[in-house]
Amino acid sequence: MTARGASEIKIEPIDRESFEEFGDIIEAAGEPIAINRGRCLRYSDLAELSFANSGRAGISIFKSRPIELPFELNFVERHPLGSQAFIPMSEHGFLAIVASALRDGTPGRPRAFRTNPGQGINYRRNVWHGVLAPLREPGDFAVVDRMGPGVKVEEFEFSEPFRITG
Amino acid sequence: MTARGASEIKIEPIDRESFEEFGDIIEAAGEPIAINRGRCLRYSDLAELSFANSGRAGISIFKSRPIELPFELNFVERHPLGSQAFIPMSEHGFLAIVASALRDGTPGRPRAFRTNPGQGINYRRNVWHGVLAPLREPGDFAVVDRMGPGVKVEEFEFSEPFRITG
Repeated sequence: MTARGASEIKIEPIDRESFEEFGDIIEAAGEPIAINRGRCLRYSDLAELSFANSGRAGISIFKSRPIELPFELNFVERHPLGSQAFIPMSEHGFLAIVASALRDGTPGRPRAFRTNPGQGINYRRNVWHGVLAPLREPGDFAVVDRMGPGVKVEEFEFSEPFRITG
Repeated sequence: MTARGASEIKIEPIDRESFEEFGDIIEAAGEPIAINRGRCLRYSDLAELSFANSGRAGISIFKSRPIELPFELNFVERHPLGSQAFIPMSEHGFLAIVASALRDGTPGRPRAFRTNPGQGINYRRNVWHGVLAPLREPGDFAVVDRMGPGVKVEEFEFSEPFRITG
């Protein structure tokens, strides 16, 4: 196996343990508290938000074209100054495409996790990740990420694309 | 018309102008920028987040029982120290129930706005609002509000309930 090259990436189911290195799963898990006089359960503070250099949290909407499988992954990106949370405004899962950093900081072999309906994710600061990858319409996400001055994104182009398959 | 009493509240459609006093509509409006090499449109920084007393932004999930119309509104609440954003994790609209503050700080006659699919809302700090009010399953929302010490919520009980009708 090489860290680069035209090779196939099998989609994996997501769980906390395997995703831990890359970020948080934002889901109704853990002990909720009842609010609104019992009408509503609150699962609090599910993502580790991190915004450097006097950045602040902002809420944006991303409207993305769904990907089709197999999907050719040509590049990944990362945000050195802030975490980035994606919350689907739909009841569908999506793909979280990520890569560990090698010793020299460049991305290793990517992995693709399929989220479950009702889950969002939060990429830790500086984690290599692929394009936003809904699997169907609508590809609408609320995004909580850093607003502020400074470098917003770094890209890394693979010498040969990876191919993500279901 | 009295500010209190058993009276009917007609649901209104939501728009920026009428909701301005209470908060932001989080939606894909305005000029987007293209990201992910054109796959995705980004509508940035759609909500005015405000967290007092060394509070910080956190992401939570609220799972709420849908309301049924007519809905009896017995009380409203407000958060003196922070704004509170609600993003539906579904493709359905919901009700945003709010009230202006009277001169003595207590809530005036409530209003109920029906959001459109694809919209979230952000209540400004200290705005009186009703319970989270999805109109159907799943009543799942991602919520961006204040994490930190201090008063989290104040409630106001109406002497007679209001009745929200479609």
